[in-house]
Amino acid sequence: MTELRQNMATKEWVIIADERAKRPDDYIERHPRELTDMQETFDPGCPFCPGNEELDLEVECFPASGPWQTRVVNNKYPALSREGEVARDFDGVHRRIPGVGHHEIVVEHPLHNTTLALMSPEEIKSVLETFYNRGWSIRKDSRIEQIIYFKNHRERAGASLKHPHSQIIGLPVVPTNIRHRIEEARRYFDDNGQCVFCVMMQDELQKKERLVAANDHFVAFVLYAAPSPFHIWILPRQHSVSFLYSQPDELTALADLLRVVLRKLYVGLHDPAYNLIIRSAPVKEISNDYLHWYVTVIPRLSRTAGFEMGSGMFINPALPEESAAYLREVEV
Amino acid sequence: MTELRQNMATKEWVIIADERAKRPDDYIERHPRELTDMQETFDPGCPFCPGNEELDLEVECFPASGPWQTRVVNNKYPALSREGEVARDFDGVHRRIPGVGHHEIVVEHPLHNTTLALMSPEEIKSVLETFYNRGWSIRKDSRIEQIIYFKNHRERAGASLKHPHSQIIGLPVVPTNIRHRIEEARRYFDDNGQCVFCVMMQDELQKKERLVAANDHFVAFVLYAAPSPFHIWILPRQHSVSFLYSQPDELTALADLLRVVLRKLYVGLHDPAYNLIIRSAPVKEISNDYLHWYVTVIPRLSRTAGFEMGSGMFINPALPEESAAYLREVEV
Repeated sequence: MTELRQNMATKEWVIIADERAKRPDDYIERHPRELTDMQETFDPGCPFCPGNEELDLEVECFPASGPWQTRVVNNKYPALSREGEVARDFDGVHRRIPGVGHHEIVVEHPLHNTTLALMSPEEIKSVLETFYNRGWSIRKDSRIEQIIYFKNHRERAGASLKHPHSQIIGLPVVPTNIRHRIEEARRYFDDNGQCVFCVMMQDELQKKERLVAANDHFVAFVLYAAPSPFHIWILPRQHSVSFLYSQPDELTALADLLRVVLRKLYVGLHDPAYNLIIRSAPVKEISNDYLHWYVTVIPRLSRTAGFEMGSGMFINPALPEESAAYLREVEV
Repeated sequence: MTELRQNMATKEWVIIADERAKRPDDYIERHPRELTDMQETFDPGCPFCPGNEELDLEVECFPASGPWQTRVVNNKYPALSREGEVARDFDGVHRRIPGVGHHEIVVEHPLHNTTLALMSPEEIKSVLETFYNRGWSIRKDSRIEQIIYFKNHRERAGASLKHPHSQIIGLPVVPTNIRHRIEEARRYFDDNGQCVFCVMMQDELQKKERLVAANDHFVAFVLYAAPSPFHIWILPRQHSVSFLYSQPDELTALADLLRVVLRKLYVGLHDPAYNLIIRSAPVKEISNDYLHWYVTVIPRLSRTAGFEMGSGMFINPALPEESAAYLREVEV
């Protein structure tokens, strides 16, 4: 029999329908290993390859002098623009705000045909430090309420360019979905006197059945109420509302653990499409006891359809405990 | 410049990024017209074709005797099963409920190679009457809290079988996302003394710039804060919380208007993949002044990626007013 499970942090229900499933290795992607096998380290037509840089879009390079390791550019087709006032225009039932904000691309590596899973811990740390530096910079803009750091890996996850890159969007509003999550987390704290994320993490560490990997600073597990197969959360052990309060040794530890998780997916599922998101508190929420930032890695192995759109609930054909056991066994 | 728009009913913000866009006809799907051109009216391997019926899965046929026009079967791989108790099992941070509920397939037509857009108004009405009859039947099950009626058209929208069909899922919980929508609608009513959906509909009828089509009982428009290109709502003019309170002449009118809308998409965008959902109140909400049921039609012309998953916000590259003007011009 299938079952409904509730994510205690978000209060969202999912249907775990492992009866219709699929064993973990059924999710191995059957595709040519194009990223690594079929491409060159340099693509003359790629705007992110060294030598092809569009300098008018450049925001910052790391390191600041000499050849860059990571590079930040403005999105050529930005969803939001840096210029303008956040003027709320309310006209009856219509509410609009000019598209003011930040939309940056983080070029993660000089090589065209690599990907986070194949990078060294130091290279992954450079990417995280770039997020960190840009986050602090964008945060200084008082118009900004929320920063979303995300990566779309492969076309199926929404990537349109192959050169390894992520994106950072600074929004002039706190999205409704994030507000709802904050309210749920606060309600849990009110009722229980504890951060729901801390409680969930301790439970995963104790039970171990959904654990994927862990180190001194971070814990990675498949979510108990995973909305989709292999849906992973990586939580800092130290309670903190924002990625931007990470200490240098935490960034090092996150790079190490992220590398392990992404390599397990790369090897175990043959380089699947995935989205990676840093979920951090609204920038004006400096500190509290109930919000806990984290990284989520969502392999794109199933499709959302009418049921998911109409209910906001997901049907996951993979048993989270089985997905986690499978990933634990993958040697990286 | 792009802009943020807020849906007053759900309070969700979207980014309308028409600067990166695309004119309406850029969304015409470039695919073989397989549904109508490349298939036979009967497929010997299709479990939904007349003569191939799996009788042990059958729930009901319409009409009840003679050859069927629509047919309802249990899903062979159900997300939820009819048998069992809704026993809530709460263990610390884990909450689970056995997968009790209903998961039915509505076979919409005897012909293998047709689709709603090509059916007669009477045939579409038969599909709606089947939803109506099954909804009332499922509603009698006191374990059920919410019914989702939906259709996935084409593989990109999640359909795995080509024979025209929809699905009905009866859930033992009210999904969190639907609860949030109810709270927002109630808050609007508290603040303004009006149903937010009624207000939005009146505004669309008056401004006309996003109107797609309308008749005596229903109004179809592209949403002001459309999360994706050509995202359409079809609202009943008469305030009502549930599809299940529709009168016979309303079902006739909905069939007529749905046919117009789906034919405009079929002709104007070359039979795109879409999801169709009936959004109706939780079954135990008998009546109130703030919830208003509706049908939504969501062509699947863009992809969700890390930003959408991390923020719950959508970036729509199509200007809703332009999408609506384009559809208004399509002759059907």
